[in-house]
Amino acid sequence: MKGMFDFSAVDRYLETHLKESLEEIKVFCAQPSVAAQDLGMAEAARLAGNMLESRDFQVNLYETKGFPVVFGERAGTSPKTLLIYNHYDVQPPDPLELWTSPPFQPEERGGKLYGRGVSDDKGHFVSRLLAIDALLEELGELPCTIKFILEGEEEIGSPHLPGFVEANQDLLSADACIWEFGGVDHRDVPLQYLGLRGICYVELSVETAAMDVHSGLGGSIFPNAAWRLVWALNSLKDSQENIRLPGFYDPVIPPSPRDLQLLSELPPVSQEYQTRYGLKGFLKEYPDKTALRVASVFEPTCTICGLTSGYQGPGSKTVLPARASAKLDFRLVPDQHPQEVLQQLRAHLDREGFADVKIEFLGGGPPARTDPDDPFVKLVLETSRDVYGEKMQLVPLVGGSGPNHAFVHTLNLPVVTAGIGYPGGNAHAPDENIRLDLYLKGAKHIARIIQEFGNS
Amino acid sequence: MKGMFDFSAVDRYLETHLKESLEEIKVFCAQPSVAAQDLGMAEAARLAGNMLESRDFQVNLYETKGFPVVFGERAGTSPKTLLIYNHYDVQPPDPLELWTSPPFQPEERGGKLYGRGVSDDKGHFVSRLLAIDALLEELGELPCTIKFILEGEEEIGSPHLPGFVEANQDLLSADACIWEFGGVDHRDVPLQYLGLRGICYVELSVETAAMDVHSGLGGSIFPNAAWRLVWALNSLKDSQENIRLPGFYDPVIPPSPRDLQLLSELPPVSQEYQTRYGLKGFLKEYPDKTALRVASVFEPTCTICGLTSGYQGPGSKTVLPARASAKLDFRLVPDQHPQEVLQQLRAHLDREGFADVKIEFLGGGPPARTDPDDPFVKLVLETSRDVYGEKMQLVPLVGGSGPNHAFVHTLNLPVVTAGIGYPGGNAHAPDENIRLDLYLKGAKHIARIIQEFGNS
Repeated sequence: MKGMFDFSAVDRYLETHLKESLEEIKVFCAQPSVAAQDLGMAEAARLAGNMLESRDFQVNLYETKGFPVVFGERAGTSPKTLLIYNHYDVQPPDPLELWTSPPFQPEERGGKLYGRGVSDDKGHFVSRLLAIDALLEELGELPCTIKFILEGEEEIGSPHLPGFVEANQDLLSADACIWEFGGVDHRDVPLQYLGLRGICYVELSVETAAMDVHSGLGGSIFPNAAWRLVWALNSLKDSQENIRLPGFYDPVIPPSPRDLQLLSELPPVSQEYQTRYGLKGFLKEYPDKTALRVASVFEPTCTICGLTSGYQGPGSKTVLPARASAKLDFRLVPDQHPQEVLQQLRAHLDREGFADVKIEFLGGGPPARTDPDDPFVKLVLETSRDVYGEKMQLVPLVGGSGPNHAFVHTLNLPVVTAGIGYPGGNAHAPDENIRLDLYLKGAKHIARIIQEFGNS
Repeated sequence: MKGMFDFSAVDRYLETHLKESLEEIKVFCAQPSVAAQDLGMAEAARLAGNMLESRDFQVNLYETKGFPVVFGERAGTSPKTLLIYNHYDVQPPDPLELWTSPPFQPEERGGKLYGRGVSDDKGHFVSRLLAIDALLEELGELPCTIKFILEGEEEIGSPHLPGFVEANQDLLSADACIWEFGGVDHRDVPLQYLGLRGICYVELSVETAAMDVHSGLGGSIFPNAAWRLVWALNSLKDSQENIRLPGFYDPVIPPSPRDLQLLSELPPVSQEYQTRYGLKGFLKEYPDKTALRVASVFEPTCTICGLTSGYQGPGSKTVLPARASAKLDFRLVPDQHPQEVLQQLRAHLDREGFADVKIEFLGGGPPARTDPDDPFVKLVLETSRDVYGEKMQLVPLVGGSGPNHAFVHTLNLPVVTAGIGYPGGNAHAPDENIRLDLYLKGAKHIARIIQEFGNS
């Protein structure tokens, strides 16, 4: 890497244009775009496209069998190409009553901006546009070609993105990729997330009759959908957290010595988690902070995300439910694969006597990781020091999921994280927010990555 | 019993005043009175009181710690007193989308009247008023003293009625009691229900954190309220339907030879149930029709009436729920008791490692039965023949529940059923309805019971 460029003018631009950038986020976030509920998706895709076009990106909206992919490209002065992945869909905002201000009316309070999507992921997208604006203002042109790909199905498991990437490898060809998110931990130390777990999201459902029945009539002789569901779920995981699908753990690769070393360098999080989430404890006793870190990312999971059956209102209703369903996500570690899990799940339920339990696949993808010693990772770490006062810490794998497998294994790109997130951001929860100081830092880091990458 | 009175003028009155009586039901049912949701209760109690006052009953509304008890009394010419029990509360109307016409806008269609409460129990109450109107018109006065007691908490397990009965034994003293319901089976043969199972209705709930968490973060290390609930429920009953509370079955009295004889005289219901409810099968294979009857009433149950946790909307949301709850009813047979079941439940959950699962008691009462050979039962059976063309068949115990224990064991009354119900009435379900032909028959039977009882 050549000697570092002087970013003082770029930084000044970012600081003086913060307010405009926040206004851009507010407009984007005021447009609901809940993929799970097919709410406002086309409008949000158009907005994202317009935002890129206003920076002279060549923009195309590609239809998929789900929501469109927004693609934008602008050439730069070097032969290098950087691919930036974001998404314009957001999580459902409920429970609405727990929001301090309405989720789709973004509001600044106390140095933060609140609203659904301000962090995950619309704010990340806009912070990158702000960095690009600053570089264009200072340099007149981009130091490398930048390609943006925004999908509209990240929050529902990206069912169509891997196929899109597979079919459009030339369009998406690049030398490196910046992922949708990034940020700091609870100490404000920036982290570099080098891998994501995979996910297999399903809905299990049972129907035992055409209608609900008076529980006094049917309780002893009619099948009860809620009981069928409870027993089926119980068969999936025991109370010691062992997932009981035969073969489920076979492909699991344990963490390497390098992974364990990286995890051991990270700070303890136990107290932080307990305070932040009001936890009454952890699932197990962990011998040390590294063991907790290992468990939190290198173990696959089976999580019940939702349960519904029968009467759920106040007081009592004596009804025997005809229908019951559960939403479940399996988080997968290398080298598990969602299609294998689906097959294991069907076979297991059949074998355990739950052929009546239907499985609907709601999305997923395999896990993937980037080599911690890749040169692009090194560049991103080096550029972080100038912004955060210290170098990003490497996290070999995180608990969340995303369609990085297609970028790592189909496009063969190193994929790095850099962004505006922090642990209090309430992603996927009420009062989602960003801190304005970290927003500026995230934009400064992106500007440095683009500039140094173009000149590397 | 003396020679039967000539009921032709009474019957004519009932037939010519059907329309007015239905209008009275419509007004009563247009007033929602959902005890579980504290909706319209005071208004419904006042309406019931007014309906009795307009027949010159002395009416009092007694406050309880829950909803008021409506009591009305009118003296008759004989020293006999008949106590009639009804309730003015109804089941919640949801799921609303499955109603053909709005639940609280009663509507006649095809010889039926539809609406929440038209059968259970407002229609039953009004049919009795119609019978009284007819007798007063023909006789000028009542042949026996009639006392009405209407409670407002039947659909939530009558938490305050037993205490009210205990404390007001003089007020309620009588020689016999007519229960809130009655009717015919799927062949239109009238049935005499001689006992009710008890019930213990609870809500189980678990809270593992102060807020829902992103499932990617917490899935491997945070407790999940939904999983805790599933495992706790699973510990209560195995998939062979054995309820696992230690001591639960100890007080169960098996059916007597007389019970078995009475059950064996009843028609088969298996095909009827399968067709009516769109069942995909029964819980077990039953050797004969009597075995199914025995299982359906002489076995206690543990029914999940509702499940709720986490995300329940369309599509996927990757959330780890902080809270989960289930509504459960236990149907009890002689001599089980709800307070014993509550103690067994708490002890069982603690022993199985579910001290974190809270139990809220939402109502209940013990089972109770009337002697099939009681003289009042005989009178009710004899009077039925003239209305239905055949004598009521005796059913020693039914699957449903109600506060009959206080009437049978505190007031020491024979308790009989006589009414307007039929199996297609959808009690507790959408499109609750009554058949107008059976409504008239029910009123005719009640008129005969009152007249013959006063003169017995």
